[in-house]
Formats: sequence, structure tokens, C-alpha cells
Amino acid sequence: MARDERGVTPQSEDFSAWYNEVVFKAELVDRGPVRGTMVIRPYGYRIWELLQADIDRRIKETGHVNAYFPLLIPESHLQREAEHVEGFAPELAVVTHAGGKELDEPLVIRPTSETVIGEMMAKWISSYRDLPMLLNQWANVVRWELRPRMLLRTTEFLWQEGHTAHADEADATRETMLALGLYADVSREIAAMPVVAGEKTAGERFPGARRTFTVEGMMRDGRALQSGTSHYMGTNFAKAFGIQYTAESGELEYCHTTSWGMSSRMVGGVIMTHGDDKGLVLPPLLAPYQVVIVPIGRGDQAGQVLPPARELAERLHRAGVRTHIDDRPHLSPGFKFNDWEMRGVPIRLELGPRDLAGGSALMSTRLGEGKMPVSLDSAPARLQFELTAFQALLLQRATEYRDSHTRTVGSWEEFVEAVMTGWALAFHCGTQECEDEIKAATSATPRVIPADGPAEEGMCVRCDLPSAYGKRLIFGRAY
Amino acid sequence: MARDERGVTPQSEDFSAWYNEVVFKAELVDRGPVRGTMVIRPYGYRIWELLQADIDRRIKETGHVNAYFPLLIPESHLQREAEHVEGFAPELAVVTHAGGKELDEPLVIRPTSETVIGEMMAKWISSYRDLPMLLNQWANVVRWELRPRMLLRTTEFLWQEGHTAHADEADATRETMLALGLYADVSREIAAMPVVAGEKTAGERFPGARRTFTVEGMMRDGRALQSGTSHYMGTNFAKAFGIQYTAESGELEYCHTTSWGMSSRMVGGVIMTHGDDKGLVLPPLLAPYQVVIVPIGRGDQAGQVLPPARELAERLHRAGVRTHIDDRPHLSPGFKFNDWEMRGVPIRLELGPRDLAGGSALMSTRLGEGKMPVSLDSAPARLQFELTAFQALLLQRATEYRDSHTRTVGSWEEFVEAVMTGWALAFHCGTQECEDEIKAATSATPRVIPADGPAEEGMCVRCDLPSAYGKRLIFGRAY
Repeated sequence: MARDERGVTPQSEDFSAWYNEVVFKAELVDRGPVRGTMVIRPYGYRIWELLQADIDRRIKETGHVNAYFPLLIPESHLQREAEHVEGFAPELAVVTHAGGKELDEPLVIRPTSETVIGEMMAKWISSYRDLPMLLNQWANVVRWELRPRMLLRTTEFLWQEGHTAHADEADATRETMLALGLYADVSREIAAMPVVAGEKTAGERFPGARRTFTVEGMMRDGRALQSGTSHYMGTNFAKAFGIQYTAESGELEYCHTTSWGMSSRMVGGVIMTHGDDKGLVLPPLLAPYQVVIVPIGRGDQAGQVLPPARELAERLHRAGVRTHIDDRPHLSPGFKFNDWEMRGVPIRLELGPRDLAGGSALMSTRLGEGKMPVSLDSAPARLQFELTAFQALLLQRATEYRDSHTRTVGSWEEFVEAVMTGWALAFHCGTQECEDEIKAATSATPRVIPADGPAEEGMCVRCDLPSAYGKRLIFGRAY
Repeated sequence: MARDERGVTPQSEDFSAWYNEVVFKAELVDRGPVRGTMVIRPYGYRIWELLQADIDRRIKETGHVNAYFPLLIPESHLQREAEHVEGFAPELAVVTHAGGKELDEPLVIRPTSETVIGEMMAKWISSYRDLPMLLNQWANVVRWELRPRMLLRTTEFLWQEGHTAHADEADATRETMLALGLYADVSREIAAMPVVAGEKTAGERFPGARRTFTVEGMMRDGRALQSGTSHYMGTNFAKAFGIQYTAESGELEYCHTTSWGMSSRMVGGVIMTHGDDKGLVLPPLLAPYQVVIVPIGRGDQAGQVLPPARELAERLHRAGVRTHIDDRPHLSPGFKFNDWEMRGVPIRLELGPRDLAGGSALMSTRLGEGKMPVSLDSAPARLQFELTAFQALLLQRATEYRDSHTRTVGSWEEFVEAVMTGWALAFHCGTQECEDEIKAATSATPRVIPADGPAEEGMCVRCDLPSAYGKRLIFGRAY
């Protein structure tokens, strides 16, 4: 486990190199044997589990139920919704042989599950009494990626996908917004990511959707990360798969459906929102270990320190603090300090014979400078307090970063400058050609029409035609 | 949701038909669009989630950590362990095209993950300090099935697979037995399945394993269901993938590895262990709803009964009892009673105006006869008690069933008779030819060498050669 090179490339020098080094050095992930695939190592998977538990609880509390649908989908199913297949066809992995034979019809590995779930909903829904149908699935999906990037864009990733069917547009829209709000809450409250929620422009919609909503976070290189999306499908999938119900009036009607997803890329978002040149910085609510205790002292001293360290860990554990003792005998305290900084542990406690004699431990927080003594007696309450403060600090720090890297722009020059280092709040005419031109010139795309942006009119920042959205959009380069 | 035919084929008439009707009518599963695939519907998935939570807790408490490995494995990887590839080759699904192109090397969808995890362990393990490495993964796997059967044998299924690496045989054997004990505990304590734990004969080993252990349950048609397996691999996979470590002595050694899995087929096991001619019978610890309240009374009366029913449900909920109120206005109480019996709910409470006036509800248990009044005041404590008793009753009932359908046999005639309706405890010579003959003659196979079977010697029930195992084996027909 010893590493020769402890440091990482500074963010300011090469953010992309920083990210790649950190995800491997913090032992979050590793490369799978097939190009573009990823192994999520125990430390990274635990972050995902903590996130997953929180999302799952919120999904269930809002009346949804989990189910599981097959991985393999007949190729012909995907073709029933024209825009959907057009969007996903280039990314499909196709099974042509199974059980030692060539298959009559090729099967695709699900890139998303609208089609197979649509097929089942058509079978399960017959009356208005069956609505709304509120399903969720935790699953792996495969999308062939030409430029894979650990956690952010891999050939296979893990996610939840909500799929719901409703009697009418109003109810389906309510659901779409409920999922969007859930994602905004998870991002802010758990991941400490101050995302901006709102609608996507037509060009950025999910293939087959009538409306797509998103929560966008700003990473520490100023780029945007789409962190969760929620789609209103209208009756597109209902018509493609025959999802119909008999209304109270006796009429046969098409359902209005939605889908929404949040994935393991959120772990990448956490890294790029909070990390620094020493490595990861984890929000306490997502940290596998919230507190690491490093016993100080070699030989006989180690023997003295370890039992009280264990007792302290046990008391913290009972107070609900995820605590780990780093008792590796062959590593120096300095090595351990660096190691847990790289892994983003919010709080470190050092416990040596002198601290012990004074009835205290030395506390350092991952973003603080210097060390403070903490009384062993009151440690559980004190650490609960410090962890809560650390979680709040991360959200505040990320909000300040986002706000100081977001600029309301009036001219194309200002726009170009703004999207070099962050986001531009700008008017846009709403045409696809103009979006494409902006992208070609700057790599920036319209990330979101902020739901809580003030109503404003103005001229398109690029082509000077009148604004189409009644407010400013956020433009930025994106992952 | 209305169904025309409520009943199911009696178990005694056609157990297989009974099973197929019950899994669909109780809305546990549905057929996927691809042959042999399965949709796990919300009611079935909730049973799996409850089982999963319990298994996951035990796995973590015994020092294992979760991780996630890729779905797609290069075909060449599988070929590195000769027995392993021979065992799985006929069941593989193969991806030949992805991203719109033919792949240079075909990829298989994991049928199990020894190979990809072996590859990563080789990379992660270098010193004795890295051992033991105790990993677990929750995942879907694909094995092409010619004769699929819902939940028991489907092309895709869900499971956990533990994979561990150790310094020596003793430590790996300890781990293999720990996993076996964990499966026995889960089966008995949670699923109320009185499984028999022990080793498999050589012919029934996992492809590539040196020793395979199993927990075997008896279904209500007398057949055995292998409900969880634990394998000691020796150094087979370590040699195939180069999983080596430097010992404290400085020598380079091969690791000894294990793997062990329990899957969604356990849900099928629960159904076939406890179900009856009215449908499912669920152990309270795995029941999505432990108690269902059916309000009695139409029109005005319904309005009177619903608020106290909700209050009762809330009190039960706070007492940790999973409670559901069936307030569907368009269905009769009789329909609801049948529906919840089919779905195996342990306890039903009827609440009508007369009960309410008397301060009580009418309780029926899924296996009891008649109804008893239960005071509303003491309902939470009473129902906790009844649920505990019901869980214990199921284990006792299944144990009695198993014991009364297990026969210690001395002759071939007795053997043949015993395996028609249950299990035979018999001596066996240990040769593969003799096992094959027995299977050809009776469809029965050696299920397990019971770990707690008494030491005994005798002559093979089929060929009269001396017994090879020092005790009797359990033979039976199996799923």
C-alpha cells in the first residue's frame, strides 16, 4: 500500500490531471480490464452507498416503490420511439450470441430503461385506479463511451432511474418537478453541492422527452456538471408502447410518463466540487470515515495509547460518528496524515501519551489550519458539532466559489471571458443554430434555465435577436 | 387489478403449476420481453430488499467491504482458469458489437466475477499486510438458461458474491465456513428455512473450486433448493490471475481465495418452503406488509372506520410493524381477504363499526383458523408478539415437514421411494459413475454431506462399495 509519490498535480496547473490522480490515489476507483469500464473500490463504493441510502429514503418517502427490470432488451423495442433510438443507437452494446448460438434477434444492454419499463407499464395499467404508477429501479446501465473518464463518463455506470405514469400532463409535470426538487435537496443537503435547478433548452433534451429538467453543479475548474435530470415525456412513450388507461368517464386515454435519474457520477461531482491540492475533501454526510484517530508513539507508547484510542472510537461510534483508528504499525504518523488528507477525511484526531495525560486529543479539520485540543470527556458532542459545521462550511465555500465564478454578461466579449473560468448568465434567442455557433466558438453550452432566475427580457448575447426564455440562461463548459 | 380467476392449482395436484400461478398472481414477478428474463415487481422486490438488508448487515459486521466490478469481461479472461471456463462457456451471453462497430475481442456478460475480481486482486495485493482482502459485490449476472423458471433459474438474476483472498489454506477455509454459517443463519433466522449446511461432493463442485459448501432447503414438494454456496478455491484462481503476496519471511506466495453467493432465488425458496393452496405465506421478517388492516363497512360507515384505522396503522408503524391499510373503495372485504392471503400477509386485522364500538379489531393469521378480537389499546405489543410467534411457527412447521420427509435408508428400494417425496439419508461410495447412475435412475443427486451428521460407516446404497464420506449424505431431487 506504500506509495512512492504522495503528491498530486495542483488543480491550478492541470485540473484534469489532478482529478485523474486523486481518484486513483484515494483508492476510489480503478480501471476495469475492458476499455472505458471502471472498478469502484471499497472506499469509493462506500461514498456511493451513503448517497444511495439517502436518495432511496427520499424516493420511498415520496410514495415510489422499487422494482427490477431486465438488463437485456430486444433491439426492436428500442426502435419504437424514434428520437429515443436515434439518441442512443451510437452508444449501444449488442449481444449477438448466447448459450453457444447466434441469437435470432440481437439484444442490447440497457442504456436506460424507458422501453422495457414502458412495455411492462402497458401490461400493468388498465384503469385510472392504477394511476399514478410510481416506480424506481437501482441498476447498472451501459453506454459505449469514446472518451471515458472515471466516475463521470464510463461505459458502465450505476444509477437509479425513476419511471412514472400519470393520468394527465398536470400530474406528470408535478412528478417531474418533485424529482427535480429531490435531486436539488440531495445535492445541497448531502453532497454540499449548491446546484442550480431548472429546465434544459430544446437542444439539450433527453432523446424522446418533451421537457428536460436538470440540476447543474459548478466544479472547481468552473465547468458545469449535470448532476441529475428529470424528464417529462408527454405521451411519446405511452404511444410507442401502448400505455393506456380507462378514465372514470370510460374513455381510453394515453398516460403521460416521466423518468428521472441520478448516478454514480455524483461521486465525481463531490470530488470536483470540494477537492483541493492535498486530495479529496468529503462532506461528512458522505464520508466513509468522518473521524480518523491516529495513535502517536512507537514501541511501548503505542501499547499505552491504543486502548484509550479504541475506547474513544467506541464512544464516537455510539454517538453515530463513523470513526476509524489507523493502527497500522509500519507507517509513520506523517504518512498517515497525508494518506487521510488524500482520502478527504473531515476530521483527524491525534492521540499521543502527552495528550492522553492531559485528557485530550489534538483535532485538525481537513480544511482548517493548525490543531486544537479536544477534551476526551466531551469529544462525542464536540465532534458532532464540528462535523455539522464542516458540512455547512463546504456548502458555503462551494456557493461562494460558484457565485464568484458566475457573471451576468451583456456582451459577447464578456460572455467569452466568463465561460473561460466559470458560468455566464446571458440572454439567448432560443435557436439551435445560435446554440451551435456558441458551442463551436467557446465550447460553452446552455446548461440550465434557472427555475428561480428573475423575469427579464433582453437581446441574445450572440446574435442580438430577442431573448426566448423570459430570463437569463446559464452557459458554461461542461463535463 | 381485478382478476377473474382467484384460485390456484392445489400443490398436491401440480406443484410446478401452483408455483407458476402464485408468483404471477401475488404480483411478485412478470416475464421480461427476452425469453428467460424476469421483471421483479415491487411486491417481490421488497422481499428481496428486506433479505438483502439483512445479508448486507451480516456481511459488513464480519469485516467485509462492498465494491463494484464491471459487468463486461474479455472472453480471454474467462479462459485462464480451465475448469471455470468449461463450466460456464455454455451459459455465456456475448457482446460482439458496441458503439456501432464490431469489437476486436468479444466480451462476455459476467456469469460470476471470479475472473475480473481475480485480475484486480492481483493488482491490489502485494504484501501479507494486504491480507485478508474481504470483498463483496451486489450485482446482476447473466447465465443463459434453456429451461428458465421464475426466480429460481432465470437468464439474469440478482445476487451478492463475496470474494476473498488469504495468506493460507487455514485462513481461507475459516472464511469459507464463516460464509456458510452466515447463509445458514440468514436462511433460518430470516427466511424461516431450516436448511442443512455441509459440503458438496466432487461432482457438484463450482467450476474451479477445490471445495464447495452449500445450504440446502427442502421445498414443499420434497425437492431440495440450493440456497447459498461457499467455495474454497485453493490457489487455482491465484495461479490463473497471479494473485501473489510477499510473506513476512520475504517469500513470494500465492493467495488462497474463496467466493460465496446468495441470490434472488432465495425469494423462490421462501415461496416453496412456506406457501399453501391459498398462495404465499411470508415470514414476518421478509413480509413487505406484516399486518394489513381491512376497514369494513360501506358508504357512511367507511367514513367512520377509516380515521381510527389510520390511527391504528400509525401506532403500529411507530412500533416498527410494517402495516398497510387496504382502503380501496371499489373492492369488497372478501376480495381483499383473498388478495392478501394470496400475497402471504402474516396478519390481517378487520375493523368494522361494531369492532370499533367494542374497542377492538378482529385478527386472523395467515395460517390460523378463525378470528380473534384484539384490543386496540394493546394492539402494538400484541401484534409484535403475534408476528414473533408466526415467524417461529413457520420455522417449526418447515422443520417438521423436512424431518417427516427425510428418511434414513438402508436399501436401494427404500432410497428410490424416499427420493420420490423427499430426501434420503444414505451412504455413498463417492465415485462419479455411481452418482451418475443414481441420477439417471431416480433424478436424485447428492445434495449435501451434512456438517452435523454423525460419524457412521456403511455400504453404498447403490453399488455396495464402502462409504467414502464417513457419514450419510442427503440425496434428493433438486431445483
